[in-house]
Amino acid sequence: MAKKTSFDVGGFYQHYPRIAVIVTARSGEKENAMAASWNSPLSMDPPLFGVGITPKRFTYKLILESGEFGVCFVPMEKAELIAQVGATKGAETDKFKTFKIAREKPVRTSVPLLKDAYLSYECKVEAHYTTGDHEWFVGRIVAVHQEEGSLTDKELLDLKRVRPALYLGSDHYVTAAPESLLFIDREPIRKKYGGGTGGGRKES
Amino acid sequence: MAKKTSFDVGGFYQHYPRIAVIVTARSGEKENAMAASWNSPLSMDPPLFGVGITPKRFTYKLILESGEFGVCFVPMEKAELIAQVGATKGAETDKFKTFKIAREKPVRTSVPLLKDAYLSYECKVEAHYTTGDHEWFVGRIVAVHQEEGSLTDKELLDLKRVRPALYLGSDHYVTAAPESLLFIDREPIRKKYGGGTGGGRKES
Repeated sequence: MAKKTSFDVGGFYQHYPRIAVIVTARSGEKENAMAASWNSPLSMDPPLFGVGITPKRFTYKLILESGEFGVCFVPMEKAELIAQVGATKGAETDKFKTFKIAREKPVRTSVPLLKDAYLSYECKVEAHYTTGDHEWFVGRIVAVHQEEGSLTDKELLDLKRVRPALYLGSDHYVTAAPESLLFIDREPIRKKYGGGTGGGRKES
Repeated sequence: MAKKTSFDVGGFYQHYPRIAVIVTARSGEKENAMAASWNSPLSMDPPLFGVGITPKRFTYKLILESGEFGVCFVPMEKAELIAQVGATKGAETDKFKTFKIAREKPVRTSVPLLKDAYLSYECKVEAHYTTGDHEWFVGRIVAVHQEEGSLTDKELLDLKRVRPALYLGSDHYVTAAPESLLFIDREPIRKKYGGGTGGGRKES
């Protein structure tokens, strides 16, 4: 495998695919939804989830004003919705009305939630940091809305029932291949080579 | 779609699959590699990439001491390597020796890089923040090592040539389904509904 070394990240697409989410926010009468594939879990206890948003976004203002945001995971079948909220500006377009986005009621915040999501988090902003040209919002998950039957008995996403939408960059989407699912038990490895993560079973 | 609302995140697996990386670090003679699926791009300009690591990890200490880390993306064929470095402790086991990990030379840092990676970033720590039970390290990408032929002419990962390793939680791995690849051009949406991301083509 020959490799090319570069000091330029180019299109900055090479670290995809990444799970795409729709981030929502409301402040007073104003609300918005935007696409974000720059996101990550940040903590188990307390449960924290992070999203990266540029300050030029309408959603950025709404989150700063309200101190809340929603994180909605929609399936591959709704990739067009991700593209629609990603291509339009909330300051100019009422995306919920324009794209006829069905809603669900939040229970611990006032953020709009998407009916089409198989998973939604309601988050309260715990902290936010400027990271280069984006702001990294750290949200505490205060409520979880999960489609029934979308998880296996091991609490994993059931890929036979849900096709997660992954962003590949440059307006391309892809989903996971259920037939490629591979279980590699870490217990025998730990026993053979010693060590172990000391109870960090839930991390990867 | 009936939904269940909960105030508990459970196993905290529901937001997977997420691209798995191997984070590497070196401080003096000590070095280590660990698995991390809590990661995200953070900024285009400057190019920043974040990883979440618990303070109990050996890698955490090495990164703090050296101010550097590597981010290595290995393909699905090397999922066992992710499991191996994830299951063992760097303070007790020399993972590079034990798992016969082939290396490549870094050019701008001293971090170990994995020959098996189709993509590696060398990062210098720009900032780090405590987010609950993890530390979120913000790294400036100072060098990129990319397997030749692994990107398409649009600079996207070529899924016909590279099978990215995605973590699904609880020791399960899955890859992307190339046949599901979908292009949804945002330009017609922008033209029809107005707005647009104002040059944010590279974000999702």
